[in-house]
Amino acid sequence: MKSQLSRLGRQLEQLAYRSLDQHLRVGITGLSGAGKTAFVTSLVHQLLHADAGQLPMWEVVQQGRLLGAARQPQPDLALLPFDYDAAIGGLCQSEPQWPPSTRGISEIRLALRYVPAKGLKRQLADHLTLYLDLVDYPGEWLLDLPLLGMDFASWSQQQWQILAEAPWAERAQPWLDQIVAHTSEARALDDSSLGVLATEYGELLKTLRRELSATYLQPGRALLPGELAGTPILAFFPLPPEALASPLAQRLASRYQAYVQQVVKPFYRQHFARFDRQIVLLDALGALDQGHAQCLQMAQSVQAIMQSFQYGPGSLLRRLINPRIDKLLFVASKADHITVDQHTNLLALTDSLTGEIGRRARFMGGRVETMVLSAIRASQQGQVDPGSGVVPVIRGRDSAGTPVTRFPGEVPRTLPQPEFWQRQGFAFGALAPPALPDPHAPLPHMRMDHLLEWLLGDKMR
Amino acid sequence: MKSQLSRLGRQLEQLAYRSLDQHLRVGITGLSGAGKTAFVTSLVHQLLHADAGQLPMWEVVQQGRLLGAARQPQPDLALLPFDYDAAIGGLCQSEPQWPPSTRGISEIRLALRYVPAKGLKRQLADHLTLYLDLVDYPGEWLLDLPLLGMDFASWSQQQWQILAEAPWAERAQPWLDQIVAHTSEARALDDSSLGVLATEYGELLKTLRRELSATYLQPGRALLPGELAGTPILAFFPLPPEALASPLAQRLASRYQAYVQQVVKPFYRQHFARFDRQIVLLDALGALDQGHAQCLQMAQSVQAIMQSFQYGPGSLLRRLINPRIDKLLFVASKADHITVDQHTNLLALTDSLTGEIGRRARFMGGRVETMVLSAIRASQQGQVDPGSGVVPVIRGRDSAGTPVTRFPGEVPRTLPQPEFWQRQGFAFGALAPPALPDPHAPLPHMRMDHLLEWLLGDKMR
Repeated sequence: MKSQLSRLGRQLEQLAYRSLDQHLRVGITGLSGAGKTAFVTSLVHQLLHADAGQLPMWEVVQQGRLLGAARQPQPDLALLPFDYDAAIGGLCQSEPQWPPSTRGISEIRLALRYVPAKGLKRQLADHLTLYLDLVDYPGEWLLDLPLLGMDFASWSQQQWQILAEAPWAERAQPWLDQIVAHTSEARALDDSSLGVLATEYGELLKTLRRELSATYLQPGRALLPGELAGTPILAFFPLPPEALASPLAQRLASRYQAYVQQVVKPFYRQHFARFDRQIVLLDALGALDQGHAQCLQMAQSVQAIMQSFQYGPGSLLRRLINPRIDKLLFVASKADHITVDQHTNLLALTDSLTGEIGRRARFMGGRVETMVLSAIRASQQGQVDPGSGVVPVIRGRDSAGTPVTRFPGEVPRTLPQPEFWQRQGFAFGALAPPALPDPHAPLPHMRMDHLLEWLLGDKMR
Repeated sequence: MKSQLSRLGRQLEQLAYRSLDQHLRVGITGLSGAGKTAFVTSLVHQLLHADAGQLPMWEVVQQGRLLGAARQPQPDLALLPFDYDAAIGGLCQSEPQWPPSTRGISEIRLALRYVPAKGLKRQLADHLTLYLDLVDYPGEWLLDLPLLGMDFASWSQQQWQILAEAPWAERAQPWLDQIVAHTSEARALDDSSLGVLATEYGELLKTLRRELSATYLQPGRALLPGELAGTPILAFFPLPPEALASPLAQRLASRYQAYVQQVVKPFYRQHFARFDRQIVLLDALGALDQGHAQCLQMAQSVQAIMQSFQYGPGSLLRRLINPRIDKLLFVASKADHITVDQHTNLLALTDSLTGEIGRRARFMGGRVETMVLSAIRASQQGQVDPGSGVVPVIRGRDSAGTPVTRFPGEVPRTLPQPEFWQRQGFAFGALAPPALPDPHAPLPHMRMDHLLEWLLGDKMR
C-alpha cells in the first residue's frame, strides 16, 4: 500500500513536471538572398555549443542555467530535415562554403534542458525541457499572404502598376506589350496559350528577382512551383486595367481564387498558423546597394507582411485562421558587411522600412521588433588612416577568397531620396565565409545572443 | 405576366434538362510499362473523332446518337493537364514517337453530346451532355493501397520475404545483408544513416522494376517521391523478421504509420474516392516475356488491387472511404504484339491472373472485368508459309524503325509452370508506333470500341 502511494506520488510528480515542459515553434523566412540557411545554421550551432563567452547577452547561459541542448527527431515527418550537418560541413572545408539556399520548407527540433530561475517552476522541478522547432520556408510563400485579402482585379491592378514602373519596366515591357496585344484582340486564348503566357510571367518574376533584386513578387509559386509546375492553378497573371472586365479576366480570376483557396490557405493553415514566433530576415544592405526602387519595394514587402500578420487595421489573418504568433522580428542580416559604428544607422533604416504601421505597433507596445545582426560573421573590424584621419574599415575575404579591406560607406538612417544614389555608392559586396577548424569550434557572429534572448528569454525564466 | 410564366416555364425546363446531364470520373492507371499514356491518348482521340467505321461495337455511335465530343477546361486546377496535343504530335512526326510516360497525376475533361435512346430522358431532352473526366495516375500509388490494411510488422515480413526470393534476391542480396548487419549491431542508427539506407532501398526498388520488371513494389513514393524526396516520411524499409521487436523497428513503424496516414490516405480521399470507374492496364505479355516470377508477381499485384477495392473479404476500402467505383476493368494492353488467334488465350491468361478472388467476383456477377486490346495499333496481321504450312504473323517496325515480320508465339491460357520458360521463349518485343499523317487522321486500334461500350454504354442510353 505504501509502495503504491509512493508510486502514485512519483507519477503525479512526473505529470506536474511534464506539464511544465514547453514547446516553441518558430517560423524563419527571408526576402531573397537574406541568408536564411546561414541564419538557421548559426542558430542551431550557438544552441548546441552554448557558451557564456560567445553569448554574453543570453541570460539563461550567463546565469549558468542552461544544462544542455540536443537535436531531436523532427516532429513533422513529411517535411525535409534542415541539413545542419551539410551546412556546417561546408564551413569546415579548406575553402569554406556558405550553406546552399533551400527551395522549400525544412525543419529541425532541438531540446533545451535548463534550470528554472525562480517561482513555482523552480519548486516543482529541478530542471525543465524546452522543445524548440525551427521551421524555415521561402519568403515567397510569406509574400503570398496579402493575396488572402485581395480579389483578382485589385491584385492585377497593383501588380500591373509595379511592372510598368522603372526600373522593373525595363525587363517587363516586352511581356506587358504582349499581354496588351492579346487582350485587345477579339480571339479567345486557349488553355495552352494561357499556360505559355503564365510561364513567361514566372520567368519575368525570376529575372526581376535575380537581376534587379525585386522582393514583392506574386504569386510566390510562380517562382518556386514544385509539384504545381505546369498546372492551371499557377497559370494566371495580371492584366492591363482596361481588360479587367473581359472574359479572359474572368478565367484568370477563377484560377487566382483557386490559388488562394488551394495553395495559399492550406500553407497558412498547415504551417503558418502553428508558429509561435516568426523571424523575417531582410538583406537591407543589398537593397541599398541596388537602388531606390529596391529599397521602396523592400519597405512595401515588410509592410505587407506586418499588415497581414495582425498589426494592420484589417487584422486579416487573425480573422481567417487565428494565428498564435505572439512575436514578430525583422532582422537586418549581414551586419558584418558594415563597420560597427553604422549598426545604429542600419537599425534605424530597418525601423523606417516598417513605415507608419511599424511606428504605430511600437508606440502601442506591439510585439514587433527589429534587430541588426550577423549570423555567421565573415569580417573583422579595423581602422586605417589614409592620411586624413582614422577611418573604420572591415577586413575579410571577397567571394574569390582574396583578402580585402573595405570602407563600406555610411548607412543612411532613413530611406534616402532617389538623388542620393547619384551622389554616393555603397560597397557591401559579398564576403567569403569564415573557416571553421572543426564542426564544434565557436562560430563567429554578431548579436546572435540578443536574438536568443528575444526568442527564448521569456520561455526559460 | 404571361411572359413571366413563359420564362418560368423555360427555367424549369432547363433545370430538368440540366439535372439529366451526367458526370463520369474515370481513374486510369497501369502497372509499369503498360502504355497508360498511349491508352489515354487513344481514348481521347477515338472520342474526339468518333466514327462508326472505326468503332463498330460502340452502340451510341452505331445508332448515330453521338452528336459530338469536345475538350473542356479541366475541373481540378491543381492537377497537370493531360498533354493530349503533345502525345498526338509525337505520332505525327516523320519518325513517330510513343507518348512519353508521365510521372504524376494528370487530368482531361471531355463533353460528349448525345441523343438519349428512349424513355423519360428522351421525352425531356432532345440531347444531353455527359462530362467525362479521365484522370491518370501512377500504378505505384494504387499499389500503396494494401498498406492501409497492414501494420509495419506484417508489411515488413511480406516485403522481406519477396526480396529474399529468386529472382529478386539476385539484386537485393547486398542490401538485405547490409540491413541484417545493421540490425545485429547494438549501436543505434541515427536519422541520417536511416535516410541513406532508405534511399538505397528506393534505388533497389527502381532497379527491380527497370531490370526485372517487378510490379509489386512498396512504398510507391520510394519510386516516385516528388516533393517528399529526402523527408523522413519516406525513410522506412522492411527489416528481417528477427529484428521486428527492436527499437529500430519501432522507429520505422512510426514512419510507416505516418506514410499511411499522411500520404496513402490523402491520395485515396482526394482522388481515388472520387472515381466512378477504374481501369488498370497490365503488360501481361511483358511479364510472360520476362519469366515465371514476373507473372506470379503481376498476379499478386492484380489480386492485391482487387482485394483492396471491395471484392475481397475485408472490403477494406469500403469501410475506410466508401469509394463509389462501380466498375473495375483490368486491360491486357499491347494486343497488337500477338496474332489475333491468340487473343482469347491472352484474355484467359488475364482472367487467371485475377485468381480465386476474380473467379468469385465473376461468379457473383461482380462488376470486375478483363479485356484485351491495343490502344494504338502498331502492327498488321499476316500469314507466312515457311514450307510446313501457313503460320499467322504480325508485321510492323521494331524500335529502330526496321520493318519486321514476327511469329510472336503462342500465349498460354493460364500461368505456366516454371519449366515452361526452359522450353519456350516469346517474341513480344517493342514495336514502333504507327505514323499518323495528321492529328485528325484515324488512329488504328484494337477493341477500343469494346472499351468505350464498357465505359460509357450504360451512361449514354
